[in-house]
Amino acid sequence: MKMSELSIGQSASFSKTITETDVYLFAGISGDANPVHINEVHAKESIFKGRVAHGMLTASLISTVLGMYLPGPGSILAKQEIKYLAPVYFNDTITATCTVKEKIEEKNLVVFDCTVTNQNEKTVIVGSSTILLGK
Amino acid sequence: MKMSELSIGQSASFSKTITETDVYLFAGISGDANPVHINEVHAKESIFKGRVAHGMLTASLISTVLGMYLPGPGSILAKQEIKYLAPVYFNDTITATCTVKEKIEEKNLVVFDCTVTNQNEKTVIVGSSTILLGK
Amino acid sequence: MKMSELSIGQSASFSKTITETDVYLFAGISGDANPVHINEVHAKESIFKGRVAHGMLTASLISTVLGMYLPGPGSILAKQEIKYLAPVYFNDTITATCTVKEKIEEKNLVVFDCTVTNQNEKTVIVGSSTILLGK
Amino acid sequence: MKMSELSIGQSASFSKTITETDVYLFAGISGDANPVHINEVHAKESIFKGRVAHGMLTASLISTVLGMYLPGPGSILAKQEIKYLAPVYFNDTITATCTVKEKIEEKNLVVFDCTVTNQNEKTVIVGSSTILLGK
Repeated sequence: MKMSELSIGQSASFSKTITETDVYLFAGISGDANPVHINEVHAKESIFKGRVAHGMLTASLISTVLGMYLPGPGSILAKQEIKYLAPVYFNDTITATCTVKEKIEEKNLVVFDCTVTNQNEKTVIVGSSTILLGK
Repeated sequence: MKMSELSIGQSASFSKTITETDVYLFAGISGDANPVHINEVHAKESIFKGRVAHGMLTASLISTVLGMYLPGPGSILAKQEIKYLAPVYFNDTITATCTVKEKIEEKNLVVFDCTVTNQNEKTVIVGSSTILLGK
Repeated sequence: MKMSELSIGQSASFSKTITETDVYLFAGISGDANPVHINEVHAKESIFKGRVAHGMLTASLISTVLGMYLPGPGSILAKQEIKYLAPVYFNDTITATCTVKEKIEEKNLVVFDCTVTNQNEKTVIVGSSTILLGK
Repeated sequence: MKMSELSIGQSASFSKTITETDVYLFAGISGDANPVHINEVHAKESIFKGRVAHGMLTASLISTVLGMYLPGPGSILAKQEIKYLAPVYFNDTITATCTVKEKIEEKNLVVFDCTVTNQNEKTVIVGSSTILLGK
């Protein structure tokens, strides 16, 4: 998508039910075998009371929205700010939404507000992403 | 690890060769099937001249350092800033390094400088992460 | 870790909740599609009364302890003896523990007692592993 | 297979080309992210001169032979001895072969000699496995 096709307030979303399989594969890819993700006995005694998804797995749905839908293929992720507000549990259905906040035309950059919510409308991540548009 | 065990400047690293397998599994988990990651014909014609890893896959090694080594299990990721400076190609060997930058004792938070470099000492990510320490 | 850093009785552990995902991926990697692992109808009628993890998947956590923690990177697995005492069911949380039993300094070898227990403290594997230390 | 169907010297094999994908998935399942398996820069400087498969991944093909072919479904792995003689590299094609060595009829046990060789006829594992036959 080109700069002229994007307008402030425009948004797109991507939703997925996060499964045990996703978390276990993510642990393998990242090397992050923190017990809160892969050890139910340990996780039950943690403040989360059960295994939770890696924060960056949840956040990865933001890049899915940006890279696939808005602005879509050709976009290059330049910068991200991510605040983790609440845990994502196995089988939660989460939705990442990105909304055009600012167009920096001279640098071909677009800034998006990005949030991830769960099936109960609880916000689990808020943040922003800056995208360099393709030519 | 407790606040008292952490000192400014202390650091830890995790390294991995990022493979096609990692990128394809990450595409499946995240749903981010942007052609620059999984379509070699398209990627060859992009500014990257070949398929590259998802930025957030590269960034995920930061959470591996924080969750596994420093401060390790019990840590909760609260906030991240990530700047993507250069692409990571299939078979690049990347190293995430996190260094204690600031201790906010009254809130039990620790701020880390986080970088990811490749096998040629090129910096591909710079950023920071704020961790809530476990009790 | 060097020979001088290891002492008799020293030990390390690694724990993980073994999931359906782990067993199904292990079946794919190994080619071991024995119905007791991947066919619930068959497995319910077996002496195990349900699908169980591959014994060698359970045993693989031993090499995780040895390769990652004690003695850690640089270690080369030379020999193993493994006795399988009880099944591991999907969602069991198992802990592999390796303890230094003998140091054979002239050959740079270290022998470990290795056990795997489940969340009920039941021992599912006992055995030993001989490690050639890195230089 | 029943005791009466097994004869001393009888054997079966299973072969597979071990890929980067197998090793990376095995690292995820086991939690064994030892750099000799997943870090090409590190591995090149090791005595192996490149990334190698986890020893227990190689050994897992033994349980494939026993659980799938000889004696096949119903078999329960009771005991294993494994000597690791040589590394398995990515894209090596390895063959696990198990041969009936001894029948212990009163205990319903069968002992197998088990070897794994690579595409150059080099033996990478020798060992034995004791199987409790199903009824």
